[in-house]
Amino acid sequence: MMTKEQIADQFRQLQDKICIDLEAADGGGKFFEENWLRPEGGGGRSRVLEGKTIEKGGVMFSAVHGPLPEITAKAMNLSPTDFFATGVSIVLHPHSPMAPIIHMNVRYFETAGGDRWWFGGGIDLTPHYVVPEDAQFFHQQLRDTCERFSPTFYPDFKKQADDYFFLKHRQETRGIGGIFFDYLDAKTGFSKEDLFEFALAVGETFAPTYTELLDRAALKIFGESEKRWQMIRRGRYVEFNLVWDRGTKFGLETNGRTESILMSMPPTAQWAYNLQPELGSAEAQTLDWLKKGIEW
Amino acid sequence: MMTKEQIADQFRQLQDKICIDLEAADGGGKFFEENWLRPEGGGGRSRVLEGKTIEKGGVMFSAVHGPLPEITAKAMNLSPTDFFATGVSIVLHPHSPMAPIIHMNVRYFETAGGDRWWFGGGIDLTPHYVVPEDAQFFHQQLRDTCERFSPTFYPDFKKQADDYFFLKHRQETRGIGGIFFDYLDAKTGFSKEDLFEFALAVGETFAPTYTELLDRAALKIFGESEKRWQMIRRGRYVEFNLVWDRGTKFGLETNGRTESILMSMPPTAQWAYNLQPELGSAEAQTLDWLKKGIEW
Repeated sequence: MMTKEQIADQFRQLQDKICIDLEAADGGGKFFEENWLRPEGGGGRSRVLEGKTIEKGGVMFSAVHGPLPEITAKAMNLSPTDFFATGVSIVLHPHSPMAPIIHMNVRYFETAGGDRWWFGGGIDLTPHYVVPEDAQFFHQQLRDTCERFSPTFYPDFKKQADDYFFLKHRQETRGIGGIFFDYLDAKTGFSKEDLFEFALAVGETFAPTYTELLDRAALKIFGESEKRWQMIRRGRYVEFNLVWDRGTKFGLETNGRTESILMSMPPTAQWAYNLQPELGSAEAQTLDWLKKGIEW
Repeated sequence: MMTKEQIADQFRQLQDKICIDLEAADGGGKFFEENWLRPEGGGGRSRVLEGKTIEKGGVMFSAVHGPLPEITAKAMNLSPTDFFATGVSIVLHPHSPMAPIIHMNVRYFETAGGDRWWFGGGIDLTPHYVVPEDAQFFHQQLRDTCERFSPTFYPDFKKQADDYFFLKHRQETRGIGGIFFDYLDAKTGFSKEDLFEFALAVGETFAPTYTELLDRAALKIFGESEKRWQMIRRGRYVEFNLVWDRGTKFGLETNGRTESILMSMPPTAQWAYNLQPELGSAEAQTLDWLKKGIEW
């Protein structure tokens, strides 16, 4: 039987592998590492990059434990218990507005003694400019990984991503979606080992997929106008994370580690009053793609 | 007896007066006006400035009515009813990091037929660099206005501002506070006319106070390092508004007019991972001032 320590250990190795791949793709930047301890139990290893290609990125590993905060227990429909949670969480903001922002998370949670356990996570992509063939490539990578496990995973988890990464107050999706899943436990019909393998497979899909997208963007030229639009889209990213993202809200409201939670913030962002891109512009076309339910 | 129309009308005039004073103080910029209608009833007049001194500012008037959204009724402990609400709301972000961000709001709310009614509002100041004598001046202005009405208003409302404008996840106040009040009704011992006069007096304190602060900052020089710090502080302003401000959260979650609600966003903002100002620097001194309960 797989132990929580083994899961945490493999997540930590996943963080290592991803950081190596990202440094290679960045072509100059080096991750800065910070280890931290959580007063109530456990801790984490934060890796932050200010690179040549990636303007600001974080690849965070944590494995924490202790009494489950009352408010969390309530939200999860659990009686008071101790918990253990481990995972890897990534957000990368590239310099170039022609390259997309990406987010990835895989995580495992269990209650005291492992009575209840589940996996969660996902990957989603937020291009400043939507490029349909890149969106197709991105979704195909996720579909391929999902289909190694179940034919229902990709359609189910793609829909969950569309629903989750949505700015209700703008009536627009954060980006072109991806996959999002939570509470994957034995009720899925899969063993803990199989579901862990799936979570790891999602984690391993991340680096080759994103580095391909960086390569595709690398030669695209851009100017002031594209940088300006990038800043506005980064503002939307901030809005999603601070207003709608459950993990962020929950962490900030329950005394989580602020700097780790807010590593997802872009390095810069801008807001303009009632900005409306010109009809037919690349920016207006991108807004047209920010809808739920598109089959890429 | 004062009618809701009279209150709305005077708030609209307050918006006019403030815009005239701010254009004069800006020394170049002109407000751009946009009138909007709310599908469920009422509307507003948004005034937005991108000026010479004020980089991005909004002075918003609205008077809206219709059925009270269920979630609001619940939050206010009211039975289902129609409502009427009117007010003026301002946020100004200056170009210079040596000048403060300011926020002002005065508002009136009543249920159908005026059975229940109250006033709310406040002014608070968010300097990028805290200057104690400016903080003293600012608080003295508010104290003077409050004391024309009641000796308890300033201490009560100052404490409420300290408690309200607080970033729990950073354990720091948004700025140097000010005054904040809500649900002022006949139970205060004041008539509706008196409380309206108080709300208007707060509104009228705004322009002379802020223009004096702009004047004081006008001759201060600054460079890249101060601009950088301003961007970081603007990031904190975003964090407060999107994570903790009840009005913003409530508006975004209940289908309010997004562009009006988010006029409070700064034109630009930045985030850095785990930024710690140098010991003894002006930035570190400012952080030391961002505490509750300081008697300026």
